[in-house]
Amino acid sequence: MGFGEKLRGAAERNGSLLCVGLDPHPDRVATDDLIPFLRAIIDATSDLVCAFKPQLAFFEVRGAAGWEALHATVDAIPRNVPIILDAKRGDIGSTATAYAEMAFDLVGADAVTVNPYLGHDAALPFLTRPDRAAFFLCRTSNPGGDDLQSLDIDGQPLYQRVADLVRQWGEPHGNAGLVVGATYPEELAAVRQRCPDVPILLPGIGAQGGDLDRSLAAGLDARGGGLIVSASRSVLFASTGSDFADAARAEAEQLRRAIQQSAAARPAQQH
Amino acid sequence: MGFGEKLRGAAERNGSLLCVGLDPHPDRVATDDLIPFLRAIIDATSDLVCAFKPQLAFFEVRGAAGWEALHATVDAIPRNVPIILDAKRGDIGSTATAYAEMAFDLVGADAVTVNPYLGHDAALPFLTRPDRAAFFLCRTSNPGGDDLQSLDIDGQPLYQRVADLVRQWGEPHGNAGLVVGATYPEELAAVRQRCPDVPILLPGIGAQGGDLDRSLAAGLDARGGGLIVSASRSVLFASTGSDFADAARAEAEQLRRAIQQSAAARPAQQH
Repeated sequence: MGFGEKLRGAAERNGSLLCVGLDPHPDRVATDDLIPFLRAIIDATSDLVCAFKPQLAFFEVRGAAGWEALHATVDAIPRNVPIILDAKRGDIGSTATAYAEMAFDLVGADAVTVNPYLGHDAALPFLTRPDRAAFFLCRTSNPGGDDLQSLDIDGQPLYQRVADLVRQWGEPHGNAGLVVGATYPEELAAVRQRCPDVPILLPGIGAQGGDLDRSLAAGLDARGGGLIVSASRSVLFASTGSDFADAARAEAEQLRRAIQQSAAARPAQQH
Repeated sequence: MGFGEKLRGAAERNGSLLCVGLDPHPDRVATDDLIPFLRAIIDATSDLVCAFKPQLAFFEVRGAAGWEALHATVDAIPRNVPIILDAKRGDIGSTATAYAEMAFDLVGADAVTVNPYLGHDAALPFLTRPDRAAFFLCRTSNPGGDDLQSLDIDGQPLYQRVADLVRQWGEPHGNAGLVVGATYPEELAAVRQRCPDVPILLPGIGAQGGDLDRSLAAGLDARGGGLIVSASRSVLFASTGSDFADAARAEAEQLRRAIQQSAAARPAQQH
C-alpha cells in the first residue's frame, strides 16, 4: 500500500486531517521514559489522525537509546497509519540515496521531509519509489523563513519557484509534497494555486498558533483534502501529569473537530 | 582549543589544506569492515591533512553498527586534527539545537555542515559555541545546484546572497564557513570577494574532478589560507586491494603536494 493510499485511507477512516508530530524534546521527556511515553501517545490518538510525524532530531540526539526508541515508536504505529519521518535531509546523489534508505528501509517510514536547496538530483533519490513520498520544505513559518524563501525571483518569491520545481520533480509518481507553515495563509493559497494536486504538510497548528480557518480555506485541494495538519507539542504535552495520554487524546479530538468544522465552513468558491 | 585554532594548527603542522572525506559508501565498504577500514585510512593520512570530514549518511544508514563505527572513527582521529561532520542538517529553533547537540556533544565534532534554506534562527544554534563552527551550503557542484542557487536576486545569484547572510551570522564568533563546490572557480572567486575572511570548504577535488589551480587562485584568502580542500573517494578507494591504506596515503600525499604547488603558483595579485 503506497503512501497516498495509506494517507487517504487513514484520513477517511478516522475523519481526520490531523497529523500528530512526535517531537519528544529531551528536556520534556527523559530517555528512559521515551518508549512508554510515545506508545501511550500513539495508542491514545491513532484513531484520530491521518498520520504520525516523528521528528528525527529528538531521537538522534539521544544516541543508541534514541534509535531504539524510534524503532519501537514505528513498531507501535498501526500499519495503516502512514509515518512521515521529519528529517529535513538533503545531499547530493549517492548520499541522498543513503538517506532515503535510512528513512524508508532502516526506519520504515512512508514519507520523509527533505530540503530542496541542492536541487533535483538531490531530490530524486527520495522520489524513485512509487509507494513512498517526500515533502520538500517550501515556506516555513519560523522567523528566519524570510531570509531566503521570500527573496524576489522575477517578481515572485523563491518559495513559489520551489513549489513549481517540486511539482515537476513529483510528476513521474505523484509522490512529492510540500511543507508550508500555517502562519501565512495568503502564501499557502498561492502555493495551492500553483500546485492544485500536491499534498501539503502544514505544521504550525497548535503551539505555534496559526489561524486554522484561514489555513484550511487556503490549503485544501478541490476535493477538500490534500492537506496534512500537523500539531506536536500541544498534543504531546497537553498535560505534564500522569493523565498525559488522556489529555493528548482530548487535545487531538478537539483539533480534529476544529479541522472538520473549518473544512466544512470554508468558502464555497474554494470547493 | 577552538575549531579555527585547531584547523590552523593542523594545516601548519602538516603543511596541508587537504581534508579527507570519510565517505564509506555501503556498496564499497561492508559494515563489518567499517571500523578497521576507517582506522587504517586515518592512521595512514592524519599527518597529511588539515581535517577529516565523516559523511554522516553513510554511517546512519547502517543503524546501530554505523553509529558505533562513527564513534570509533572519531576516537581514532588525533585530537589536534579537527573533525567536520558532514550532516547538512537544517531545522527550526529547538530542533536545530538538538542537531547541534548531536553533532558537537554526541559525536564530538568540531564543525558541522548545515543547510541555509530555513534562515537565521535555524542557523544560529550551530554558531552559539565559540569553539565550534558551522559550514553552510552556498554553491554546490551537483547538476541540480543551479535549480535554486543560481536564481537571480536583484542581479545576483542566490548563492551570493547566502554568502552575505552567512558572513553576518558568523560575525559574533567568527565561526561560520561556506561550502562551495570546486567546479565553478569564477563563482568561488565571487564568494571569496564578498567574504574575505570566511573559511570555505571546497569539495569536488579528486573523484569529482574540479580544476585545482583555478580553485585555489579563486578561493584562498589574503593570507593564503581559509580554504579546506576536500577529497573523499579518490583517497578512500585509491586501491580496492589489501594495500588500500598505502594507496590512500600515496593519493593524499599527491593531493597535498598538488595543493601546495597550486597555492605557491597562484597569481601575485591574489596575495
